[in-house]
Amino acid sequence: MDLEVMNGLLRPKSIAVIGASNTEGKIGYSVVRSLIEGGYEGPVYPVNPKSDEIQGFKAYKSVLDVPGEIDAAAIVVPAKFVPQVTRECGEKGVKGLIVIASGFSEIGRADLETQTVEIAHEYGMRVLGPNIVGILSNSDKCNASFAPFLPLPGKAALVSQSGALFIAMDASTYIRRVGFDKMISIGNMSDVNFGDTVSWLDQDESTGCISLYIEGLKDGRRFMENALTASKPIIALKSGTSAHGAAAAASHTGSLAGSGKVYDAAFEQAGVVRASDLNNLFDRTLAMSLQPPMQGDSLLIVTNGGGVGVLATDSAERYGIPLRFAPEDVQTELRKYMPEFGSARNPVDLTGMAGRDWYQVSVQYSFAHDWVDGLVVLYCETAMTDPQDIAEGIKAAVDGSGVTDKPIAVSFVGGERSEAAMRWLVENGIPAYNEPDTAVNAIAALREYARNQNAAQSFVRYQDVDEAAARAVITKVRSEGDRAMTEIESKAIFEAYRLPVAHTRLATTEDEAVAKAVAANGPVVLKIVSPDILHKSDAGGVKVNVEGEEAVRKYFREILANAKAYKPDADIHGIAVQEMAPWGTEVILGSVNDATFGPTVMFGLGGIFVEILKDVTFRVAPVSPEQSLKMLSDINGAPILEGARGETPKDRKALAEVLSRYSQMIDDLGDEILETDANPVIVYDEGDGVCIVDARIILKAE
Amino acid sequence: MDLEVMNGLLRPKSIAVIGASNTEGKIGYSVVRSLIEGGYEGPVYPVNPKSDEIQGFKAYKSVLDVPGEIDAAAIVVPAKFVPQVTRECGEKGVKGLIVIASGFSEIGRADLETQTVEIAHEYGMRVLGPNIVGILSNSDKCNASFAPFLPLPGKAALVSQSGALFIAMDASTYIRRVGFDKMISIGNMSDVNFGDTVSWLDQDESTGCISLYIEGLKDGRRFMENALTASKPIIALKSGTSAHGAAAAASHTGSLAGSGKVYDAAFEQAGVVRASDLNNLFDRTLAMSLQPPMQGDSLLIVTNGGGVGVLATDSAERYGIPLRFAPEDVQTELRKYMPEFGSARNPVDLTGMAGRDWYQVSVQYSFAHDWVDGLVVLYCETAMTDPQDIAEGIKAAVDGSGVTDKPIAVSFVGGERSEAAMRWLVENGIPAYNEPDTAVNAIAALREYARNQNAAQSFVRYQDVDEAAARAVITKVRSEGDRAMTEIESKAIFEAYRLPVAHTRLATTEDEAVAKAVAANGPVVLKIVSPDILHKSDAGGVKVNVEGEEAVRKYFREILANAKAYKPDADIHGIAVQEMAPWGTEVILGSVNDATFGPTVMFGLGGIFVEILKDVTFRVAPVSPEQSLKMLSDINGAPILEGARGETPKDRKALAEVLSRYSQMIDDLGDEILETDANPVIVYDEGDGVCIVDARIILKAE
Repeated sequence: MDLEVMNGLLRPKSIAVIGASNTEGKIGYSVVRSLIEGGYEGPVYPVNPKSDEIQGFKAYKSVLDVPGEIDAAAIVVPAKFVPQVTRECGEKGVKGLIVIASGFSEIGRADLETQTVEIAHEYGMRVLGPNIVGILSNSDKCNASFAPFLPLPGKAALVSQSGALFIAMDASTYIRRVGFDKMISIGNMSDVNFGDTVSWLDQDESTGCISLYIEGLKDGRRFMENALTASKPIIALKSGTSAHGAAAAASHTGSLAGSGKVYDAAFEQAGVVRASDLNNLFDRTLAMSLQPPMQGDSLLIVTNGGGVGVLATDSAERYGIPLRFAPEDVQTELRKYMPEFGSARNPVDLTGMAGRDWYQVSVQYSFAHDWVDGLVVLYCETAMTDPQDIAEGIKAAVDGSGVTDKPIAVSFVGGERSEAAMRWLVENGIPAYNEPDTAVNAIAALREYARNQNAAQSFVRYQDVDEAAARAVITKVRSEGDRAMTEIESKAIFEAYRLPVAHTRLATTEDEAVAKAVAANGPVVLKIVSPDILHKSDAGGVKVNVEGEEAVRKYFREILANAKAYKPDADIHGIAVQEMAPWGTEVILGSVNDATFGPTVMFGLGGIFVEILKDVTFRVAPVSPEQSLKMLSDINGAPILEGARGETPKDRKALAEVLSRYSQMIDDLGDEILETDANPVIVYDEGDGVCIVDARIILKAE
Repeated sequence: MDLEVMNGLLRPKSIAVIGASNTEGKIGYSVVRSLIEGGYEGPVYPVNPKSDEIQGFKAYKSVLDVPGEIDAAAIVVPAKFVPQVTRECGEKGVKGLIVIASGFSEIGRADLETQTVEIAHEYGMRVLGPNIVGILSNSDKCNASFAPFLPLPGKAALVSQSGALFIAMDASTYIRRVGFDKMISIGNMSDVNFGDTVSWLDQDESTGCISLYIEGLKDGRRFMENALTASKPIIALKSGTSAHGAAAAASHTGSLAGSGKVYDAAFEQAGVVRASDLNNLFDRTLAMSLQPPMQGDSLLIVTNGGGVGVLATDSAERYGIPLRFAPEDVQTELRKYMPEFGSARNPVDLTGMAGRDWYQVSVQYSFAHDWVDGLVVLYCETAMTDPQDIAEGIKAAVDGSGVTDKPIAVSFVGGERSEAAMRWLVENGIPAYNEPDTAVNAIAALREYARNQNAAQSFVRYQDVDEAAARAVITKVRSEGDRAMTEIESKAIFEAYRLPVAHTRLATTEDEAVAKAVAANGPVVLKIVSPDILHKSDAGGVKVNVEGEEAVRKYFREILANAKAYKPDADIHGIAVQEMAPWGTEVILGSVNDATFGPTVMFGLGGIFVEILKDVTFRVAPVSPEQSLKMLSDINGAPILEGARGETPKDRKALAEVLSRYSQMIDDLGDEILETDANPVIVYDEGDGVCIVDARIILKAE
């Protein structure tokens, strides 16, 4: 990232508005008006061939006529003129283009977009948009957009792919009381994408939390890298997660929405916290922009009402931080600040008699206590207490505790007095919400953030693999005009990555089959080998538990006959002779080459778990053995591998290494491999390893 | 329900305040003050032995001194005086007691509570509370409580078990803009419970929707009956659903919280819609108090922004009403009111260019269209449009359509202008929310309500059962001092309910076992029969696939020896000889006698589905065969019974009848049976029936 150029684009010290207008209702009018009303202090250069003056500013026929330097040019001329205007900006030495104009890829004119970006890059310029509202920055008093005003000031930044939502969310910051320093409309992402904005906002001193409204990422890998290296919390609302929604998103933005499960995995791997809906995005943003991450699981709830305490307890379980009772010393201390019918266990119920003092001492004590990792303070408005008093008590307690590395969130349920007290709390850095569930959810966001951060891990590539051998197999298959690799070919690639496959050799004649069966020293499986027959069982192409010369010969012929009957023109390589793997627990490994995130590995238990319960988990490749272990725990059927029902635990460690190597394989060969399957894979008891019984690789179309 | 008495209690035409006070800060002061400030128009009779006048009213030494009739007495004297005061009220002819006073069962003085209710019932009075805030009624201008004011007027009613939340929610109605006509604080529910308030509110002409905040029901069955017969929508926020939350609830209210899954089932069976949290309770209440149920699954979304459209689409899937594309005629018509880059499929994207006119014509057309069962209208505030204009267009469209039997919900995302427009919409009967997710969730509540209503079904008892025979078995077991019934005894009861058990007979000698094995005409299972050995396999007490006289004799001795070694003092009845059931799909039936809802039946698939995935579903007994079929579809593994993976569909019809008979059995014998298990139960292919292989019944403690 060229910081100077990005600063010029997103914090411009001077702005040209190309297509500026004096006609109210035109976007070229609104952008100049917004700059004026926002209080922008740098020079504004309206460009319009037909006017000498626009809204009080001297206007220029061309950007080339502008006397001073220009950091950013907001472009509002019709799409067809944008490439030409871009070249003039380049000649002028403009740093960044805010292409508000629409009429590009969203209506099928991707060509105009590509042309614009190519010209811009010739001159070292970056392009934001096209098809955007513009940019907003409170700390620069810069409203270079057709949104009517700057958002409520605050510590968060918002990047939105939807223009309509951008304007509506801007207005709603004043209602929701969640403040933003910057808002960036990202539109078609012809050049500057989510990853760029994340990296830039990460170094922006006025930004404390990065919030994203995403319809579809264009370069998922780069986004993940940018997000992973960012030191600030990132929260994303991803739309188009439903089957129908994905279709709607595709028609709306022209970008591929990607499968929901892969997005889930990618965000978690990149340390990005999710929002479930618009309110949740604002609510979580508020907490994440004001409070530090929550580094442990001990959440304490302090309340003056049993009812809201129970509701918050339910919420804590719902959001993955189930409550535990506070240790004895905490309970003993807290019992001092409540009547006998209160409770110090957790939730700490100070009872409806609690005023400012009880709140203050108990919050200060518990916030400072080692056992407490995070605090949620609840208050039900009563006739006897003043919400503002309680708010001030809470604030004084937080200050008095000296704690700055744990989060706190507050919920007041009540009327206008409670609302006012909560506004005061937010202004004083303490996130506050009108119901317990939202406060607990906000704390849970800070917990998720810490968990994701702690789980992030760099992948150490296996050095004992033979990528060249794998590529040689691929080259050979390609040379034969195939994309669907046979089991024999697929296993050759697996073996190049030292994956434990069941010993399988190709026999092209009956005699060869007999020899290989004898060498296997026990019963074998015979399977048809043909790039044209993927579903071998359906073709009558598999025979298990074959023993003895006679049987081998008989089934060799039978399988060949079946295959020919199934698909007369199939290209048959021969018959695979595979040693029978002893039975164990069946699992499945697989991969897709996701349109957004590239090679992505899948894990699940076999049989009904995959086919009926869809109990699988994904990760963008590669994944370390530790992250693979986490995958094994992610599925609902996880206890089966852990040794449920009195069974011996399965060899999860070996399986995790297999998964990790597998992920490196599909990542290394991501330019060639489209999909893979290792199914079934047999997992044995702890220490006894794993055996991949069958394998399949489909190559990308050339 | 004695309507006159309940009206006297909840809509009193005259009120005595017993324990009224002139001292600010006392509850006896607040209640009188609330009546005055609420504008109560009936006579108020303060009772206080030490004053002649209270806050401008003439005061009386005793309620017996009051000259006029008294409908309700609000009681705020210390708990120990309440029974005596109750008797005086009875003598006076008071109809209902609003016992605000605390110090009863919540601190271990259930005796005072029982005494009060007994006295009240002697005189035909009903008791609300104790330990409550009071009652609020806008249509009666009656604030007989220590809450400072009446709620925002509206069409809903709220019943709350928590006093603190009652006051806080009252205040928050003004912030949330959700109006209530009545609010009832229900406290310890010594007499009047949730079921009573539901029935009474159902006949109250000012109530359109009944909202409940429940910590724990006391008489679950009665509540279900009252809810089922109610003609108005009921929505419940049940707290204490988490493991830890249930513990907190128990300590808070002294009532058993009950298992979350049984509550889920009971609410669904009773047609009660659920709220997930406090905001959700208000949001859903708003829609349910203003709009009719949604009678089909075709939800149409109209929007001016693709982004919010996609978010709403995701939400629709999340809340169980996934979107479908609108039919061609709808699309053709709607395409007339949008630019070319809009979309008429669903969501209907009118684009950011949409003003009042486009909204109005498209909403009016689609609301009136047969295909549309419900409508969600979204609007993102733009610089070019006026939210109030859009709101008026929507309202005019709804009125113009003439439709009153379908619901509509609206979401405006924006600033103060949008907020004002939404307030106007709500005042005009159209629920409006600040984000799409909430609007879709509200519509989903109306869909759930319709679904629950349509699924409600009366149970037709099986007449061919022999309850007397079942009871005779129980009597015999009881007479032997046992509670854990043996398989033989349990199966006898199952057979009395015509449940298809595997033929099993008791053998007390080797010879008898041989004779019975021969009669079985095939291999048999031998199992130990002892009320003291529940886990037969663990005791080495089971041998399957036993064939031939020699084997029967050998294993008969072996099992006996194992059982004696396992538990030397076990009371051994003999050995069960059971015909081997052919194998099929394994399922489990079971039951608990829930503390709140009584006999409750459980269904799940066998093995890992129950043990690892906890994939089970509950229903309060009895359930009809149709409802049982629904249970079979409720579990995640449902496709296994439906014939997934190319297998023949299983006999779901026979299984549903078994489940229905089973539910009648545990319901009929609910006074005796604590728990049951039918495990495994084998389900065969369609038409081939079901076989219960093993059975267990545990009786209640006497």
